[in-house]
Order: sequence, then C-alpha cells, then structure tokens
Amino acid sequence: MQQQAQVLAFDVFGTIVDWHGGIQREVEQMLPEVDASAFALAWRAGYQPAMQHVVTGVLGWTLIDDLHRMILDGVLVQFGVTQLTEAQKRHLNKAWHRLDPWPDVVPGLLRLKGRYTICTLSNGNLGLLSNMAKRAGLPWDCILSAEVFRAYKPDPVTYLGVARVFDLAPQQVMLVAAHHDDLAAARDCGLQTAYIERPHEFGMARPKDVSAVAANSWHAQDVLDLADQLAC
Amino acid sequence: MQQQAQVLAFDVFGTIVDWHGGIQREVEQMLPEVDASAFALAWRAGYQPAMQHVVTGVLGWTLIDDLHRMILDGVLVQFGVTQLTEAQKRHLNKAWHRLDPWPDVVPGLLRLKGRYTICTLSNGNLGLLSNMAKRAGLPWDCILSAEVFRAYKPDPVTYLGVARVFDLAPQQVMLVAAHHDDLAAARDCGLQTAYIERPHEFGMARPKDVSAVAANSWHAQDVLDLADQLAC
Repeated sequence: MQQQAQVLAFDVFGTIVDWHGGIQREVEQMLPEVDASAFALAWRAGYQPAMQHVVTGVLGWTLIDDLHRMILDGVLVQFGVTQLTEAQKRHLNKAWHRLDPWPDVVPGLLRLKGRYTICTLSNGNLGLLSNMAKRAGLPWDCILSAEVFRAYKPDPVTYLGVARVFDLAPQQVMLVAAHHDDLAAARDCGLQTAYIERPHEFGMARPKDVSAVAANSWHAQDVLDLADQLAC
Repeated sequence: MQQQAQVLAFDVFGTIVDWHGGIQREVEQMLPEVDASAFALAWRAGYQPAMQHVVTGVLGWTLIDDLHRMILDGVLVQFGVTQLTEAQKRHLNKAWHRLDPWPDVVPGLLRLKGRYTICTLSNGNLGLLSNMAKRAGLPWDCILSAEVFRAYKPDPVTYLGVARVFDLAPQQVMLVAAHHDDLAAARDCGLQTAYIERPHEFGMARPKDVSAVAANSWHAQDVLDLADQLAC
C-alpha cells in the first residue's frame, strides 16, 4: 500500500508565482518603450541554457540571482536598452523576488499546511525565495532550494534531498508543480506527484496545454483544488 | 555610521527553545526511574565534543539528529538504561524536535518579523528546525542551518553565509543568541550581536550568569525586550 505523503514540496516559478505577469509589470514600469511580455519571455527562455552551463561545468556553482543577471545583461542588449544604471539593473534583476502568487496560492497553502509540512523545492536561491515569501505571505514551513543541495532540478539529488531532510521515504514526499518534466523526474525518484494547471504561465496571449498525464498521483486546477482533493 | 540590520538570525537551542525543560519532560515520561534533569544535562554535554569529532575530521559531515543519537546511546549506558526498543530510542532522539519555546518567543518574533527578516542560524539540521517550528508556531521567514553551510557555528562560514544568502554586508545581519561565545564569533565576522538572557537554560536549579558583555550591540532580557529596544 502506498504510504501517505507527509511533505508537499512545491515548485515555485510558474506553479506558485506568476513570473510572466510580474516581470512584465516591472519591465513596463522601467522600460515603457519595450515589449514587456516579449522581454519577460526572453529572460525566462535564457534560464534553462544558463543552468546547463553550470550542469556541464562551463560555469561553477551559481545562484539563480546571478544567472538571472547574466541573462538580463544579454536580453537588455537584445532589446536595445542601453540607458540603465548599474543600480537600476540590480533592482530589475530582483524583480524575481517580487513576483505575485496566483490568487489561489495563499489560501490553498494555509489549508494544506494544517495537515502537511509544506516547503519549496525550487532552483531559486534561498534569499530570493525568502524575500518572495515574506513579501507575498507564502506560509512555508521550510524553504528548500537547489542552493541547499548544490544541484538544480531535475537532478535526483534535489528530490531525494527533500526526503532526506525530513528523514522520510521518497514516497512520503509529494512534488507539486505545473511542469510535467519536473514531475517526471521526481516520480523517477519515487516521489508522489501533483500537477497544477497554470494555463497562463506564459501570459494570457499564450495559453499552455494543461492536459493531464496519467502517471501523476494527482491533477488539480490550482492549489485550492488540490486542498479539496486531499481533504484539507 | 553603522548600517541598519535587515536580518535577525537566531540561535535556537537555549535562546529560542528550552532544551533542558523539554528533554527533562520526555525523559521523565519514558524513563521514570532516571534523574531526568541530569540525563538532559549529560545529553547536551555530549554535543560540543561530538561536533568536534566532525570539525577535526574524525567523523565526516554529520547531521545533529545523528550526533544526538550517538550521544544518546552513550548516555543510556551511563544511566544504566537497557530496556528501550529501537523505536523508543528513535522517538526519544526526536525529543529535540519537540522542544517548547520560552513564553516570550512567539509574540516577540511576530513583532520583530514586521520590520526584519527573521531566520534561524543553528547547528540543528533543517528537518529538526522545521519540525520544531511547525509544532511550536515559530514564524521564521527562513530556516538556515549548519546543514546549509556544511559547517557548524562558530565557523565563520556560517555567520558570513547568512549575509551571503541575503546579499547583504555582514553588519546588516544581527545574531541573536544566549551564548557569548557564539556572539563573539559572529562579531569577529562583522555581524551585529544581541544577547538574550536565559538564566534557566540549564534548569531552575542551576541559574546561569547572564551578565552583559559590553561588546554586544544589544542586551535584552528576552525576545519581547529586544523587540521593545528595536522599537518593533
């Protein structure tokens, strides 16, 4: 019989917070001449390739704040932006700390927290995730990050690391994410998995396919729906 | 001019939670024939020597849960206890996850949290600190531990690590602790320091000297007094 999950570990960018909307909003404020949605998409598109530079050893271990800055410098060139001061670039880079949660997130997490230990499992660094949680009122029991495990998802070290931190078997941990590749990697490590639909992760103009994948333990419209399904 | 602190990092055992009272209570319940206060003191007394085995390389990196268990096995022999099952030993070892906070802690932290980022900086492992916080309602913004830095306090890596996590200068971080040696090591790294009096850390029968040390930035009777002094 499947053991009951005790810890719910949440992906953050896209699953918990609306990165597209948040980055778009700050770019619109600072750079009104730029297509802010395209800017947000370009910034985010640099993320996986930048992490690959670390995974392949081209770069040493690097915090996401620093990867975001490297990508930002390239995106600013790409969009022909030359007028920003160093202080403005630093401020804009921390827009990732100031992303808003989807509206279901805080009430949903508060319900889940009554029965489960709820934590992050994000490639975002600890400072970023802490600042985000404080600003947005995300009620994590613990903030876990690639920074703790010195490896990015989908490295098995990260998923198994959550189980190890809490002295649990992998099947007692459930990864909650809006990305099937993340969930598949967690499942390969023995974790339970819950998919969260975020059809507007890439903006209202670019709806995402949120079809179910049968291998996931749960499929929920949002965090409140997951709390309903888990009877929290 | 001294920069304002933005992050308050708290020592946990003794400063936030009453380890002596909590261990004594659980030992009394499980082992009524034993002097529970002496048992608690012996268990805690094994802590610094056990960490030294890691620092000097006799042991590899070890979580405090595992150090606590090694010490417990010795203390059980010392007190002539032979009847515990493995499950009972595992349960007793996790008494460190079930320690109660001093009565000023939760209201004091809630006030400080309004102005500062509040986090732990403890040699306790992440799972221990998370379970403790969830049970006791400790409202941390982030749980930082020796486990994150792979070094125990008083290694400078831990104090400077808090500043690095939050992208701050060391003087923008304040260590809050009931132990002058911990505060001295933090001060040597450039952190601000606040001493908290915990005269009964070792039990009511063994009051501790809680005299002020002038080098600390602040000296407070408890966390509520610190919140008063910091005008929170």
